[in-house]
Amino acid sequence: MGERIWTAGLVVIGDEILSGRTQDKNVAQLASWLNVQGIRLAEVRVVGDTAAAIGEAVDALRSRCDYCFTTGGIGPTHDDITVDAIAQALGVPVVVHPEARAMLEAHYADRGGITDARLRMARVPQGAELIANAMSGAPGIRFGDLFILAGVPHIAAQMLDSLTGTLEGGLPVVSRTIGCWVAESEVAELLRTVEAAHDGVSIGSYPFFREGKVGANFVVRATDAGVVDGCIVDLTTRIEAQGRTIAPDGI
Amino acid sequence: MGERIWTAGLVVIGDEILSGRTQDKNVAQLASWLNVQGIRLAEVRVVGDTAAAIGEAVDALRSRCDYCFTTGGIGPTHDDITVDAIAQALGVPVVVHPEARAMLEAHYADRGGITDARLRMARVPQGAELIANAMSGAPGIRFGDLFILAGVPHIAAQMLDSLTGTLEGGLPVVSRTIGCWVAESEVAELLRTVEAAHDGVSIGSYPFFREGKVGANFVVRATDAGVVDGCIVDLTTRIEAQGRTIAPDGI
Repeated sequence: MGERIWTAGLVVIGDEILSGRTQDKNVAQLASWLNVQGIRLAEVRVVGDTAAAIGEAVDALRSRCDYCFTTGGIGPTHDDITVDAIAQALGVPVVVHPEARAMLEAHYADRGGITDARLRMARVPQGAELIANAMSGAPGIRFGDLFILAGVPHIAAQMLDSLTGTLEGGLPVVSRTIGCWVAESEVAELLRTVEAAHDGVSIGSYPFFREGKVGANFVVRATDAGVVDGCIVDLTTRIEAQGRTIAPDGI
Repeated sequence: MGERIWTAGLVVIGDEILSGRTQDKNVAQLASWLNVQGIRLAEVRVVGDTAAAIGEAVDALRSRCDYCFTTGGIGPTHDDITVDAIAQALGVPVVVHPEARAMLEAHYADRGGITDARLRMARVPQGAELIANAMSGAPGIRFGDLFILAGVPHIAAQMLDSLTGTLEGGLPVVSRTIGCWVAESEVAELLRTVEAAHDGVSIGSYPFFREGKVGANFVVRATDAGVVDGCIVDLTTRIEAQGRTIAPDGI
């Protein structure tokens, strides 16, 4: 192998996630998007709406990953403290970005105009750039390798669209899944053997219980599609040799 | 206020979450369960299937929270390394728990019997107790204030059921939600004022875009139901004074 692996961390910000009120969707969404960019999501932290928790998590993930993303806390209300918390962690002041202000003025021109609350969404850590967002007037924020996105998943998705193809990454991870109506404990040794026999692959085993019986999906991942295919063939052959039937696209 | 606040951390373990393949459901599930126990979920970390990442996250959350939970990585396959990683972090050996072994033998008696792979699920950090699981033969694991649960959400739920009422906690957080078809920027100042006027409450503002228009839900949280109710009345009165209609149970 030896190719460089690019990594990202994600800080999910919001009491609503930690209280169980809101089901996070940004982890899976960002992970899938990153994979296409050739970047691996290495760690996620979910923290509440306090400056200390946000700052600590952002510092930690920035220091260990190539990129750091945050979602949540960039709206107009009192509980939206992400920009202030991050600016404090970065050691820079918060300023109103003139372009963001212009975007918000245009967006709210026929919606009652700009107000102090709306102007909060134009505040950025000094030195930051904006991330366009076709969905609402409020942009995301880029500060070097740190990306501050909205918490509402479809708005975060718009911001990721704007970033597509702009981040340096490595080889995307390729994955293929096969499934079998089998207790994973019955193929555990076989999985271990096959993974060890194919350089650079990882095999994940994900059991489930459906229609009154147990099954499992096996996900083979590697950066080389040929290696993945070879491993899938080997795995399929060995499981079928036990007299079992493989679902070639998973169950 | 002044009552003691009990906190928990959660380490979600699994490459499948970080790859975007699997949508986590354990954060919201554990958060809701903890709240009933009077314990607040303070931080979540999602880490991949490596011993170093698991050990570091468990150490960090154990040191800062009253309780630490993990989900994932306790099955029979080669990618299930949670027990080994945690035992290593705790500095204790891994042993086969005789009661867990007996449970698995009973569970698999008419399913082909015990095997090496299945016996993996009886391995625990030395000194640990078991957490019963009515769903499958494999128990969860308790080591003091550390709880090692399954990753499959309905199995994790069974293990939480077994723990219900056994953990010391404080006052549960009470929350009530009202909704309004309003841009949250139009009530941002009002929200800030109302929150400041009611000791011990936090108000969360959660915007959405539905049926072609914007709205928001406002969640008032406190440990005293009377305080929550008083705050809801105040908030409702002030928003209605702007000529708006409140949905009393949220939108």
